[in-house]
Amino acid sequence: MIRFECDYGEGAHPAILEKMLKTNMEQTAGYGLDPHCERARELVKKECNRDDVDIHFIVGGTQVNTIMIAAMLKPYQGIISADSGHIAGHETGSIEATGHKVITVPSKDGKIKPEQIAQVYDYHYAQGNREHLTQPGAVYISHPTENGTTYTKAELIEISKTCKERNIPLFLDGARLGYGMAAPDSTIDIKDLAQYCDAFYIGGTKVGALFGEALVITNDAFKTDFRYHIKQRGAMLAKGRLLGIQFESLFEDGLYYKISQNAIDKAMQIKDTFKQKGYNFLYESTTNQQFPILPNDVMNKLGEKYSFSYWEDVDANHTAVRFCTSWATSQENVDSLCEDIKKL
Amino acid sequence: MIRFECDYGEGAHPAILEKMLKTNMEQTAGYGLDPHCERARELVKKECNRDDVDIHFIVGGTQVNTIMIAAMLKPYQGIISADSGHIAGHETGSIEATGHKVITVPSKDGKIKPEQIAQVYDYHYAQGNREHLTQPGAVYISHPTENGTTYTKAELIEISKTCKERNIPLFLDGARLGYGMAAPDSTIDIKDLAQYCDAFYIGGTKVGALFGEALVITNDAFKTDFRYHIKQRGAMLAKGRLLGIQFESLFEDGLYYKISQNAIDKAMQIKDTFKQKGYNFLYESTTNQQFPILPNDVMNKLGEKYSFSYWEDVDANHTAVRFCTSWATSQENVDSLCEDIKKL
Amino acid sequence: MIRFECDYGEGAHPAILEKMLKTNMEQTAGYGLDPHCERARELVKKECNRDDVDIHFIVGGTQVNTIMIAAMLKPYQGIISADSGHIAGHETGSIEATGHKVITVPSKDGKIKPEQIAQVYDYHYAQGNREHLTQPGAVYISHPTENGTTYTKAELIEISKTCKERNIPLFLDGARLGYGMAAPDSTIDIKDLAQYCDAFYIGGTKVGALFGEALVITNDAFKTDFRYHIKQRGAMLAKGRLLGIQFESLFEDGLYYKISQNAIDKAMQIKDTFKQKGYNFLYESTTNQQFPILPNDVMNKLGEKYSFSYWEDVDANHTAVRFCTSWATSQENVDSLCEDIKKL
Amino acid sequence: MIRFECDYGEGAHPAILEKMLKTNMEQTAGYGLDPHCERARELVKKECNRDDVDIHFIVGGTQVNTIMIAAMLKPYQGIISADSGHIAGHETGSIEATGHKVITVPSKDGKIKPEQIAQVYDYHYAQGNREHLTQPGAVYISHPTENGTTYTKAELIEISKTCKERNIPLFLDGARLGYGMAAPDSTIDIKDLAQYCDAFYIGGTKVGALFGEALVITNDAFKTDFRYHIKQRGAMLAKGRLLGIQFESLFEDGLYYKISQNAIDKAMQIKDTFKQKGYNFLYESTTNQQFPILPNDVMNKLGEKYSFSYWEDVDANHTAVRFCTSWATSQENVDSLCEDIKKL
Repeated sequence: MIRFECDYGEGAHPAILEKMLKTNMEQTAGYGLDPHCERARELVKKECNRDDVDIHFIVGGTQVNTIMIAAMLKPYQGIISADSGHIAGHETGSIEATGHKVITVPSKDGKIKPEQIAQVYDYHYAQGNREHLTQPGAVYISHPTENGTTYTKAELIEISKTCKERNIPLFLDGARLGYGMAAPDSTIDIKDLAQYCDAFYIGGTKVGALFGEALVITNDAFKTDFRYHIKQRGAMLAKGRLLGIQFESLFEDGLYYKISQNAIDKAMQIKDTFKQKGYNFLYESTTNQQFPILPNDVMNKLGEKYSFSYWEDVDANHTAVRFCTSWATSQENVDSLCEDIKKL
Repeated sequence: MIRFECDYGEGAHPAILEKMLKTNMEQTAGYGLDPHCERARELVKKECNRDDVDIHFIVGGTQVNTIMIAAMLKPYQGIISADSGHIAGHETGSIEATGHKVITVPSKDGKIKPEQIAQVYDYHYAQGNREHLTQPGAVYISHPTENGTTYTKAELIEISKTCKERNIPLFLDGARLGYGMAAPDSTIDIKDLAQYCDAFYIGGTKVGALFGEALVITNDAFKTDFRYHIKQRGAMLAKGRLLGIQFESLFEDGLYYKISQNAIDKAMQIKDTFKQKGYNFLYESTTNQQFPILPNDVMNKLGEKYSFSYWEDVDANHTAVRFCTSWATSQENVDSLCEDIKKL
Repeated sequence: MIRFECDYGEGAHPAILEKMLKTNMEQTAGYGLDPHCERARELVKKECNRDDVDIHFIVGGTQVNTIMIAAMLKPYQGIISADSGHIAGHETGSIEATGHKVITVPSKDGKIKPEQIAQVYDYHYAQGNREHLTQPGAVYISHPTENGTTYTKAELIEISKTCKERNIPLFLDGARLGYGMAAPDSTIDIKDLAQYCDAFYIGGTKVGALFGEALVITNDAFKTDFRYHIKQRGAMLAKGRLLGIQFESLFEDGLYYKISQNAIDKAMQIKDTFKQKGYNFLYESTTNQQFPILPNDVMNKLGEKYSFSYWEDVDANHTAVRFCTSWATSQENVDSLCEDIKKL
Repeated sequence: MIRFECDYGEGAHPAILEKMLKTNMEQTAGYGLDPHCERARELVKKECNRDDVDIHFIVGGTQVNTIMIAAMLKPYQGIISADSGHIAGHETGSIEATGHKVITVPSKDGKIKPEQIAQVYDYHYAQGNREHLTQPGAVYISHPTENGTTYTKAELIEISKTCKERNIPLFLDGARLGYGMAAPDSTIDIKDLAQYCDAFYIGGTKVGALFGEALVITNDAFKTDFRYHIKQRGAMLAKGRLLGIQFESLFEDGLYYKISQNAIDKAMQIKDTFKQKGYNFLYESTTNQQFPILPNDVMNKLGEKYSFSYWEDVDANHTAVRFCTSWATSQENVDSLCEDIKKL
């Protein structure tokens, strides 16, 4: 079985493992207070083009989402998210478990529009007894989205402006950020995020690391005592240097960008092949997740040799599925798949 | 200003105040362990036609909802509710504050259908990685609903069956239960609720009491240690007998039913008057809340003399509003309103 | 059985019931936004000698404690309390249920010393990895304490100073405040609390009301959006005016002070009688709770006619018990008790 | 600086890294559903000598503690722990953050006695209004303890019996389990834990792994839906196989036991050297943490070349400190330290 069902099927980029091996018997302080984390923080700050940001390395994405959002909100506040947002539907109610509602707005493509934020916010403040409603206290977006789509820089700026005007912070989930920045239509880089978001993270788990996400906090209001939040939620890795080592590897020579490009190249090859075969797509994805709509017999036939994810029924005879590439996807496997698609 | 904006604008039915006055200097144990609560529990059990139920008297509806639902759910579970449900939109995220998601299903009239429950439940269990999703763990309905509509007994039985087949408990919010039972189309009584719900409550606050709701737990699984839940959530009234006294008054001679009827009679008079005048309604309510759709100039004119609630914009020139009657609504005030409607 | 086991055994002072009766059919807005609450807020502000405070009326003490403390703390903070504090041991872990640790310090008499606050705080900030510990984020004291003792004004000022120097807010639980202010050794009044606490409350439930506590917030940092906290925790009374009416009654002509005095007079009579008989006391209480240490046979004999609370075993043959008086305690009952004590 | 300040200063045992390298490009399912986790679960079951246990691999100890304890308790319950327990003082109130009180009992050596459990439990159930108190719902112990001491098998059996008689589950924190089993006075092995605990974990982070703890659930009541808990608390590692690979390495040829022995050998050498020099110890530790009491000038002198942890002031001139060894501690470093101790 050749696997295209997710972007965390393999281990780590070899450069990371090599560095881990080389530094293995170093003695360092724990909990992210070691020289590797220190250096990785400097490297990430350089990507941000800002020195006045706080960087925390955390093992997984659900942890980052939960901790950062809980830290941003007051007890009676909720966070606005697309109904397809990862926090809305794929994290077992972890935001609610910290006491907060996820206020969803409908989205076909995974993106939310500035008008939707404005509408939720303005509707709330137009109410007489507004203390009977959950107050919108922050905004969550992902880039690229769970549907593989990306925001343009103009859209990001407009969302940021909408939030700032209403004094609610903007948090961006960058679990697949590398793939978003490598997308053919990409107009956003890390500097932009550091300028327009109150907090965001650079995903490692899905982009070449064994695990790890680099959380960047730009808004001073959320910097104070942040390590308490991390520890309380069980997310402070004892051997924190493992996170530092990985982000050093990813950002010391642009490895993050290089390996992200591989995922996009392979995804585009798959996309083009399905397209040439005449298949439509559920979402217009320009990143490493592709959602072709397949006749069920085609889906079943491909499923004999390749693994991919069921996404949703389109009609009685057609199903949308997800093919995922990553930093690790080999030319050989993609060629094999494309060959087989052509033969369908 | 003559008030029709809610059903808690006055104090209590005089019989309640009189009993409170008469028993004022009695010395009793606190926390609901007094003879008045004891007797009120017996009276409610009689209404239920069951002796094997636990009764707890609690000050307000949001408290009952929060405590009972949190007691029903495991940490990773959520509760299914209509998107118009009181817990979904009018309690400041109190369910989420206890760690649980409210899983909403769309509803135009405030009711949910058995198929919607089945769909949410079955979709969840059809997932591969279902532990990434909030597990549906209970169902919340209100009768009458927030939109003034009522369930039929057949509908209640079908919902109950759907829940039982899936082993998830059914909780019914009866904040306005008296008005639901007095509705012209009513086919449900307290005995039915005691038979088909795992827990429900009989609203006092909106039906003649100063405050207080009688929670009935029929499912043994949720009876154990329930007083701990009440105390922990700050809902154990020190002078608990005040709750007992009120429910004694409401149920010793059928007062609850009698005063509920008044609200319905008055509401029907208002409804008919608007109807005869040719106005449509946002919901087909048969209870004490009526939602006529008014031309904006009519709305403004009525607003000079009567208070009512803004509900929603229907179009540029029409607005849906809410008129509420209660046990306390006087014939005089309703006649005055109807007179003025006719003159419009 | 003549009851001395608690100070919430009777209903309300007749003046309160009378006002409730008189205003019963008034139509008012709900949720504490009515003219009675408005006037009661003005009266309480006058007691505080400050106009720049926020007043909220809430049904019970556990609610006030939970809501105010949760509003004061950041997610990783706890509140310092005497180990005998009400929040530490008598509220079913309600503070923890909002996510916060109660950081206890030992206390024999129910009071905490400024040095204890300083020690907890300074110890925390002296740690290297302090983010592994719960950060002390507020201080809770009660006046009078759960042991019937009182703080002097000098002690209050010193505690307040200790807190301010460390930038942590001080919250005072005044569930029995009236009795504290009527104590023979009292040096603190409401003006002092309004000057030296960041928030405190004036207890009604135990001092003449049916229920209700008046929360006073003096620190601007905790005023914003406080009604959301109240509603979310299920503590916003629909017919909020009932709270307003009660505090109007208690403070329009000094009723609160007058009826508090009754409890103290009666408690002192009981105290003196036990003392003259040669009994010792567990705590040096000057308020309405008295804790005599009785030989077990004496305890049993008195228990045949009077109810009081078991407190703790002192030795094999002696037990400390609690006798409680209140605004409602009659001269007749106290005389009967004292007579019987003398005859022992 | 030669480091003895903790047992997580180095990376992983080379055998683990090697296996990680060798399996790096394998494609596997995520979230612990891969063949490596499957095999590691089998290996751990073999250690338990039971097949009817559930095994979950989780990144860190605070996560395991928080998730397992929250899963064991009802909302109104707390967990009994020594006041020196890791959950009581070193996890930033993470248990409280899930809504539960840590009910502490005093302990000098880090252990709790069966009588202490019985006393807390029995005291609770002897109360009249027990619903005003946090109900004890589980017991937490660690082996070895935070003070380096160990339970004997007889003690474990007695604690287990005390819990079973009261129907409260026993959870054992084995963050340093390997070192406890390698202690010269050890009488407990994994089979015993699987017999006498309702849940426990085998620590990897401090015993040779990069990270990872193996949670063993023996009580059926806590097995259902446990993966939901893990995911909701953000503790489900995407590349879960990394945990499987590590525990495969640790348990396929007894590596866990072998490397644990190294820590104990080195610790005993340090202990003996301090002893021979005439120093006393704060706790009678037989494991990898040693707590000598040093004159302050000696402490400062040693501190120039070696890192160790400050523990507590013993008197004006003496301080207790902690020296930690681990699987990675080299003979060379220990010889150097002992040499320098002898020269003091």
